[in-house]
Amino acid sequence: MLPPETRSRILGAVDDAFDAQVEFTRALIAEPSLRGAERSVQDLLHAAMEERGLSVDRWTLNIDDLRDHPGFGPVTVSYENADNIVGSYTPATVHGRSLIINGHVDVVPTGPEAQWSRSPWEPAIVDGWLYGRGSGDMKAGHAAGLFAFDAVRAAGFQPTAPIHIQSVVEEESTGNGSLSALLRGYTADAAVILEPEENMLVRANVGVIWFRVRVAGRPTHPREMSTGFNAIDAAYAVIAELRQLEERWNATRFEHPHFGDLDHPINFNIGGITGGDWPSSVPAWCEVDVRASFFPGISADTAWAEIEDCLQQAAGRPELAGSVPTAERTGFYSEGYVLDPASDAEKVLAAAHKESVGAPLETFTTPGYLDARVFSLYGDMPALVYGPRSEAIHGYDERVDLESVRAVTKTIALFIAEWCGIEERDV
Amino acid sequence: MLPPETRSRILGAVDDAFDAQVEFTRALIAEPSLRGAERSVQDLLHAAMEERGLSVDRWTLNIDDLRDHPGFGPVTVSYENADNIVGSYTPATVHGRSLIINGHVDVVPTGPEAQWSRSPWEPAIVDGWLYGRGSGDMKAGHAAGLFAFDAVRAAGFQPTAPIHIQSVVEEESTGNGSLSALLRGYTADAAVILEPEENMLVRANVGVIWFRVRVAGRPTHPREMSTGFNAIDAAYAVIAELRQLEERWNATRFEHPHFGDLDHPINFNIGGITGGDWPSSVPAWCEVDVRASFFPGISADTAWAEIEDCLQQAAGRPELAGSVPTAERTGFYSEGYVLDPASDAEKVLAAAHKESVGAPLETFTTPGYLDARVFSLYGDMPALVYGPRSEAIHGYDERVDLESVRAVTKTIALFIAEWCGIEERDV
Repeated sequence: MLPPETRSRILGAVDDAFDAQVEFTRALIAEPSLRGAERSVQDLLHAAMEERGLSVDRWTLNIDDLRDHPGFGPVTVSYENADNIVGSYTPATVHGRSLIINGHVDVVPTGPEAQWSRSPWEPAIVDGWLYGRGSGDMKAGHAAGLFAFDAVRAAGFQPTAPIHIQSVVEEESTGNGSLSALLRGYTADAAVILEPEENMLVRANVGVIWFRVRVAGRPTHPREMSTGFNAIDAAYAVIAELRQLEERWNATRFEHPHFGDLDHPINFNIGGITGGDWPSSVPAWCEVDVRASFFPGISADTAWAEIEDCLQQAAGRPELAGSVPTAERTGFYSEGYVLDPASDAEKVLAAAHKESVGAPLETFTTPGYLDARVFSLYGDMPALVYGPRSEAIHGYDERVDLESVRAVTKTIALFIAEWCGIEERDV
Repeated sequence: MLPPETRSRILGAVDDAFDAQVEFTRALIAEPSLRGAERSVQDLLHAAMEERGLSVDRWTLNIDDLRDHPGFGPVTVSYENADNIVGSYTPATVHGRSLIINGHVDVVPTGPEAQWSRSPWEPAIVDGWLYGRGSGDMKAGHAAGLFAFDAVRAAGFQPTAPIHIQSVVEEESTGNGSLSALLRGYTADAAVILEPEENMLVRANVGVIWFRVRVAGRPTHPREMSTGFNAIDAAYAVIAELRQLEERWNATRFEHPHFGDLDHPINFNIGGITGGDWPSSVPAWCEVDVRASFFPGISADTAWAEIEDCLQQAAGRPELAGSVPTAERTGFYSEGYVLDPASDAEKVLAAAHKESVGAPLETFTTPGYLDARVFSLYGDMPALVYGPRSEAIHGYDERVDLESVRAVTKTIALFIAEWCGIEERDV
């Protein structure tokens, strides 16, 4: 354990730079880094890493390098603007344990902007909350990782183990960004991801599959509507069948450690629908975009086979008249994970959190996707997902609590110092 | 009643030109005259009318001329290519009654073309059926009107009353094409429309309204799905509420003459749906395109007020969480009509039909939209909707029975001769 005076210098350095950290976070939010448009925010991060003297590795994701990996998510967009960046710190002398600090820059769509109190791309601070799309998920955490690293050095120290600061894409749709960084060879003794997690550590999360179901109808003129069948009605029947599968999976939650206390950990989100060509024709087709989740320990292949069985079952519903829906995978094909409670990394984080927050570190289960599965399942690294309080991520008026961001930054600064080790900096 | 030898000459003239009529019909079908792309098929009809020595009036629809009329349907597309054409025949001497022969050139979308046995735009004849989008609805009937007019003259006669052959757009979406022709001043003692009606005469039809309903959701991350509500689920609840209204209206069918024998004359078609931005966000919005119908004698304003009340009711369903759906009208705003059985025009048609088909003319009620309402409600003209046998209009492999087309052409040729009167043609 580092001496109190050392810890105090580091915590003070976080406070000293916090205004600058908030300004940098605002600059990140102001870049609308929606999927397919991540390049400009990566330019900011690239510059920030170079200013810090990190050795920067930047590359565009290449599907051919990824597609054979079991954790690959099928891609429906161009990767033309999908760059990953890793800024690496190489210590003068190596005593401690190496670290990856990972963050993603992609954000989800805003929905109708008129529903926001202000533009999602004009970050504003109101009552201690910083607003904007991506504020919580996860630009505040991403900036916190960089400024925590700064604080150690600003306090007069230098880490004594390699640190890779990863800025990745595709966390909201496939997880291919972090996967690409792993396959490029980046590993470490632990990974930290500063997702918005209510100042807690994620113990477990779910696997996620994205898919698109297509149902055919039999188009006719409405004057003889009963001779056709309506693909939109058929789509709702498929949704009903999928919801039965969702409930069957939820019913097994007590068999899965860390999930029994949650009311409804498995959520099938019907995220999009499109169907029909003409108000006066019985619709010939309908497509539904689904995000399904499943418990850790179940393979994606097994979950997918059950989903395909479910769609086959749906063909028996009267609305489908025997027509079997087709499904294609359109993104995530990722398995869940459970973080082993026995890791040293977690112990170090818990101590750092207690110092910065003044309370014990709590853990919880989050029924969402996290890139931590890449490190955990395929890199054999303890992956600590921990981060600030947020509200309305993926919703309107997304926001993050700035005092919580400050606390998280302090935790991570202390974590870096303890985990990687430090020495007085050569001036 | 015309002498048998006269009738026989006219019927023979239809047979003589029938191969040419089929070829002309095929040429019409080969033009994909979807909404917004009607110009090329109108060019064919323009040339055909000029070849026949008709005086051609061609104009582009102008919304400003139409919007204040109660039968106007709101427009969501450009009218840049929406031309009407009227070819007028002026007799040397006037003895008989004037006539409008009306047909529409617009066709509905094909749906996925892979579901067709062959391209919808490559007309083919198989077992006496002519296939293609628009074959039945209504290019075969449209050509039949022109060739019926030809047959009278080819038989050595000339009509003794004015005839306006109208080729209009927008019958499948608003009815603004026929409305525009009426407002331009075209009236006559009767109108004939050769829609695909199974060799029968339409006694009554329904009013039709098109509208788009929009429901808002409350987007969130699926990990906290229960704190949001899903606009796609909400849309389905709105659909359920609309179907209750549909059933209430159907329950009154015995109060409406000519509708009591139909099982389900009022059909609300859910023709299109679009919603959600992202598989992993609870959807913020969903839009549904609806074609609703209602009984003749009910004003469009009354029907629309009931629909709006219904949407208000839907807000009380749990899936909407009190959020009131909004609705905008997107096309038809048209009332139904009943054809007075006492008209002379109908008597003349019945006699002509009996001669060409060898059986009495049957009448029936069609629960679809027809442009006849323009003539009937706003022009005070008997409007006879009568036409060939078809299958799968608005569906895949739309087709029309060619022998039925031949019979209909004969009926109309005799009708023209009897209604307008004829005299030996000056050679």
